[in-house]
Amino acid sequence: MAQTVKLAVVRGDGIGPEVVDEALKVLHAVLPDDLVVQETAFSLGATRYLETGDILSDADTAALAEHDAILLGAVGGDPRDPRLAGGIIERGLLLKLRFAFDHYVNLRPTTVYSSVASPLADPGAVDFVVVREGTEGPYVGNGGAIRVGTPHEIATEVSLNTAHGVERVVRYAFDLASRRPRKHLTLVHKSNVLVHAGALWQRTVAAVAEEHPDVTVDYQHVDAVTIHMVREPGRFDVIVTDNLFGDIITDLAGAISGGIGLAASGNINPDGTFPSMFEPVHGSAPDIAGQQVADPTAAVLSVALLLDHLGRADLASAVTQAVEADLASRGTTPRSTAEVGDAIAAAVAARTTTA
Amino acid sequence: MAQTVKLAVVRGDGIGPEVVDEALKVLHAVLPDDLVVQETAFSLGATRYLETGDILSDADTAALAEHDAILLGAVGGDPRDPRLAGGIIERGLLLKLRFAFDHYVNLRPTTVYSSVASPLADPGAVDFVVVREGTEGPYVGNGGAIRVGTPHEIATEVSLNTAHGVERVVRYAFDLASRRPRKHLTLVHKSNVLVHAGALWQRTVAAVAEEHPDVTVDYQHVDAVTIHMVREPGRFDVIVTDNLFGDIITDLAGAISGGIGLAASGNINPDGTFPSMFEPVHGSAPDIAGQQVADPTAAVLSVALLLDHLGRADLASAVTQAVEADLASRGTTPRSTAEVGDAIAAAVAARTTTA
Ligand SMILES: CC(C)[C@H](C(=O)O)[C@@H](O)C(=O)O
Ligand SMILES: CC(C)[C@H](C(=O)O)[C@@H](O)C(=O)O
Repeated sequence: MAQTVKLAVVRGDGIGPEVVDEALKVLHAVLPDDLVVQETAFSLGATRYLETGDILSDADTAALAEHDAILLGAVGGDPRDPRLAGGIIERGLLLKLRFAFDHYVNLRPTTVYSSVASPLADPGAVDFVVVREGTEGPYVGNGGAIRVGTPHEIATEVSLNTAHGVERVVRYAFDLASRRPRKHLTLVHKSNVLVHAGALWQRTVAAVAEEHPDVTVDYQHVDAVTIHMVREPGRFDVIVTDNLFGDIITDLAGAISGGIGLAASGNINPDGTFPSMFEPVHGSAPDIAGQQVADPTAAVLSVALLLDHLGRADLASAVTQAVEADLASRGTTPRSTAEVGDAIAAAVAARTTTA
Repeated sequence: MAQTVKLAVVRGDGIGPEVVDEALKVLHAVLPDDLVVQETAFSLGATRYLETGDILSDADTAALAEHDAILLGAVGGDPRDPRLAGGIIERGLLLKLRFAFDHYVNLRPTTVYSSVASPLADPGAVDFVVVREGTEGPYVGNGGAIRVGTPHEIATEVSLNTAHGVERVVRYAFDLASRRPRKHLTLVHKSNVLVHAGALWQRTVAAVAEEHPDVTVDYQHVDAVTIHMVREPGRFDVIVTDNLFGDIITDLAGAISGGIGLAASGNINPDGTFPSMFEPVHGSAPDIAGQQVADPTAAVLSVALLLDHLGRADLASAVTQAVEADLASRGTTPRSTAEVGDAIAAAVAARTTTA
């Protein structure tokens, strides 16, 4: 019996459509007969907002919820457009979906491929995963301001952290660490300053660690982590961290590896109550949109995360191996977005046929 | 008439005493006849706390306030010592002084010296200053927790941002930028998520920018800044940012330059109401304390910031030039902490005599 997966596809803005096209090309190249993907296109993002005034209606959310998973390219328009000021698309769409679909695990793997130039002189072997909390922390929108625009303005931002929210993501991170060869977990926080949230995270990690004697655990402050990430990134295996710290360190992680053009992410609802969402970490890059110069690799690797999430680790690894082969064979001649997608899809097809 | 400066010296814990000794050695080597420094030693830090139970008494604070400036080595004991858990020394001493003495500018310059190996393959010419806000943001200790230790625990951290607090540090940053050759200022925040605080910072920067038509201004999200800092750090000139973002990106800045062993900082009260405090960015490193292996350069460069603050830019640049000369002449033979201090002091003295 074939497994049928309903996939919502949000191509989005800027380079989003281009990179999603290639990601889907690779997805189709890897699909075996026993896995059927039914795609539904959703037109969401800055373009649609500027046309209709709608960012994400309740009907959109309900329709998306009918799907097993979401593949998203990138959303966000020209940052200088005053109609899009203040990140309304990012918050109204990306963050809204993460919260609505309880994406409490934001999974962001980092690999340094030997064939890809790193800005680091000597990165060494790097292969870690950041498990970023996705539904709490300073991202909850729980702040405000009074006397706005006056010399007496006060603006607050509140970070909310719950035992429920911290424990479930910490459990996920330990489970992941115990399935990886090095079985190491690093908690990243700023517990010497953010003492209340920090204590909750540290206590939770200590408690769950008891159930995982096979996993070694350490703790690092978020400031110190940035140092280790450029000086000795190979030391990390699984990192578990808060929503904001995860945002910051995964961009850094993307930068020290092949760059943000290779960084994939999964916004995961491990309970399966809601569709998980897979997206490149990069943004919509409107300045280079439509020129076929964007690297679709991060979107393709997001498809690998999707396949893994669907329980098809075999297909996921076929995709990542095809990407690695493509990266290794890259010359100095620039290729178009579609040429990169074609090459990876061909490599996947070749592997699948010979396997 | 000689200028007399009352300097409070907090040698502190771990490697603190060793690096402060060298910093003072260099200070004395550079002092001309018309500048007299009167030192008062303050025994503060983890060692004193474990002996007496006192971290920083009101009497300590009052005595420190009688001084013109403070030179601090590093504070903090063995991180595994349960009596020091949760950063009580860091908060009770370092942060308490920053708040008590209204150190609203935390100044952290970054230079990549061509003679010092950077972890970056090709850092290029790098010379920027981070102006980190020092008295607000998530550092205010304004959070709490309920139902601690139960499955219903909720922990909050509140970031407080005021027009007063943001405007004064932004003004300082603009003044600094307009005195530098490139006259460029980058605001770093996360305004697409932390909308209330972000809007206050962005509005303030826009308003003060009107008074500084000579300074070019841009904005970057804190996550994106980490990417630029490893890929193209030379693009930055003056960065102004929030307390927490400043903490994170200045450790990264330290790492991409010669390492945290070279990073100096000034906790400045520009109004002169309270003594400003100068300290290396690095911590007390108890694991290598007393071995004469710590690099005192960051402490020495903190003396340069102190001299600059005292209005003696000439002496400050004598110190930084001596440091640069020392860095350029470093061989592969490791030198002791005192040997590095001796070498820099000798270079300073040679310059001062020939000048
Ligand atoms: C666009 C923005 C809201 C988002 C975030 O901060 O989470 C992005 O930076 C990311 O990392 O996915
Ligand atoms: C020790 C700690 C409280 C401090 C901070 O977070 O400010 C340190 O990291 C720094 O940057 O000076």
